[in-house]
Amino acid sequence: MSPVIKVAAAQVGPVHLTSTKEEVLERLLILFYTAVAQGAQIVVFPELTLTTFFPRHMFPNGPELDKFFEKGDIAESSLMKPLFDAAAEKKVDFYFGYAELTSDGKHYNSSFYYSAALGKIISRYRKVHLPGTFEPFTKPDAINQLEKRYFLPGDLPFDAFRAPGLIKGAVKGGQSVDGSTIGKGDPILGQLICNDRRWPEPWRVYGLQGMELMLIGYNTTSHSPELWGSRKPMTLEEEYKEVMFHHKLVMQANSYGNSCFSVCAARAGADDGKWGMIGGSCIIDPQGHIIAEANTDDDEVVVAEIDLEDCRQGKEKIFDFDRHRRTEHYGRIVEQTGVKEPELLP
Amino acid sequence: MSPVIKVAAAQVGPVHLTSTKEEVLERLLILFYTAVAQGAQIVVFPELTLTTFFPRHMFPNGPELDKFFEKGDIAESSLMKPLFDAAAEKKVDFYFGYAELTSDGKHYNSSFYYSAALGKIISRYRKVHLPGTFEPFTKPDAINQLEKRYFLPGDLPFDAFRAPGLIKGAVKGGQSVDGSTIGKGDPILGQLICNDRRWPEPWRVYGLQGMELMLIGYNTTSHSPELWGSRKPMTLEEEYKEVMFHHKLVMQANSYGNSCFSVCAARAGADDGKWGMIGGSCIIDPQGHIIAEANTDDDEVVVAEIDLEDCRQGKEKIFDFDRHRRTEHYGRIVEQTGVKEPELLP
Repeated sequence: MSPVIKVAAAQVGPVHLTSTKEEVLERLLILFYTAVAQGAQIVVFPELTLTTFFPRHMFPNGPELDKFFEKGDIAESSLMKPLFDAAAEKKVDFYFGYAELTSDGKHYNSSFYYSAALGKIISRYRKVHLPGTFEPFTKPDAINQLEKRYFLPGDLPFDAFRAPGLIKGAVKGGQSVDGSTIGKGDPILGQLICNDRRWPEPWRVYGLQGMELMLIGYNTTSHSPELWGSRKPMTLEEEYKEVMFHHKLVMQANSYGNSCFSVCAARAGADDGKWGMIGGSCIIDPQGHIIAEANTDDDEVVVAEIDLEDCRQGKEKIFDFDRHRRTEHYGRIVEQTGVKEPELLP
Repeated sequence: MSPVIKVAAAQVGPVHLTSTKEEVLERLLILFYTAVAQGAQIVVFPELTLTTFFPRHMFPNGPELDKFFEKGDIAESSLMKPLFDAAAEKKVDFYFGYAELTSDGKHYNSSFYYSAALGKIISRYRKVHLPGTFEPFTKPDAINQLEKRYFLPGDLPFDAFRAPGLIKGAVKGGQSVDGSTIGKGDPILGQLICNDRRWPEPWRVYGLQGMELMLIGYNTTSHSPELWGSRKPMTLEEEYKEVMFHHKLVMQANSYGNSCFSVCAARAGADDGKWGMIGGSCIIDPQGHIIAEANTDDDEVVVAEIDLEDCRQGKEKIFDFDRHRRTEHYGRIVEQTGVKEPELLP
């Protein structure tokens, strides 16, 4: 039998500062059931799904900030219970991004993967590549991006995982049919969050675990004066196009380079009527082609059937890591964080 | 003053098995002078520039194979002397790909960078990511790619280097004006060869040295049945489009992800009237946009003026490695060559 599964990106339109989490969850349930009605077996929600993208605002530490976070273990959240119940009942998995406040008071930009076959969260992730700044900008019209202020960098490894129950004929319990062959048995998944997708390192770390399907939620603002700075003044429309171009470029290139499918789910539209988000939720194949994408800037489900067998050609030929990679030359990638320019003349 | 330089890709059309190296060099000189006439200060030639792409043919070891190689130090080659002389006279640098046979009998797929200001080769490189197979295919109509048979993997590091004399006002001797600032002083260059460009690792190793301009020569066949294998039969026209799509995708994504310009020069057209090469020589900016590209499948010069100051925005903001990279999570990239799948259930 072919390892075919149906996946969905659940794009979420504008969420305002005044929107309650309960209101948002109602919309998420509608998206979830819409995806299920189209046969989806995995539904991917955005980053920080339950609230507006609050890192664009400056809040003092304490309750005013913490109200955007989910405290303790999200698996026990009463707010989230209707979504967990729906997933359990419909036997559908999901990826979900949220602001996590741990019981010992740490703040993370997190996501998890819920397996309906196992009836629990089977993988947790905390965003590693936090964009933006710690201090707010001083120019009054600048748009802040305070993720470095509000979150700690993720402390969990990029651990790929097998998700059981999705492919007919895979041995129950999560092991692949023949124990090793890529594209057979239970699929190997990875998860990232937003800005992580622009960095080839996390994709490669997952790729080195045979990852066949990457799941990503994101919030990406369409107004991005930092792209070119003062080098090239752009209209808002040009900025939107540029940001969307970069989004698709990194999703397509990294899916191709790791011979995997990917599903990415966006926040879209204008939060509070003015903070534009690019949307652009899409599903990409292992040759880097977009096979399904959102058509709106609002709540929308994007669905595609994918055949994981399509990962094999790349993984076994042009990107057969074992035959082609030369790790003896890659040392700088882990030995230095920032730039060290060549100092001397040759 | 602005760090502006003019760069050129010298695309080379069909070269046949019967073409002599002297014939090819005549064409290269025409390309070189054409680029110089348009103001180019750096000219990038393809991979294995002096011959047809011989790894598509099976030759026994020995003289029949070695005739495609340049023996000893190419700086001393009488064949190449007219090109070195032209570069010295016109004060123009160049990148050049060739088959190298060292004095101790080792075969590499190599390139070098000649600095006119210093009057010598200042950087040498040997292709690290060799595609293809060691054994020829057994199917009579298969197209071989025997680079793993004919070449050793490169043993030189991905060392970025400063090229002096290109930017007015940069202090003579190759150091930048203020000793450190990216985009000022002499530009920081990197070189790769063909298939290397599909791997984010070498780009990142150069990026971690502040590289502002990547130079790449390549031979890429337009007939590529291995792309999808038997999964998706394609016409020759579809294969050509797919191969070109992947070429541009990796060039654009890696230039964006490392905030650098890049120049890539192809072999193009049909060698021996039947072995199609994609061409597609182009120049790309640090936001990943193609700013100039070849229009033909033949000998052609592609020229663009680039302002290295355009690298700074990316290097100092979204891809400020020092602030954003988290090397503690990247270990697998150097610790394992091939794939290790997750074995156990979560």
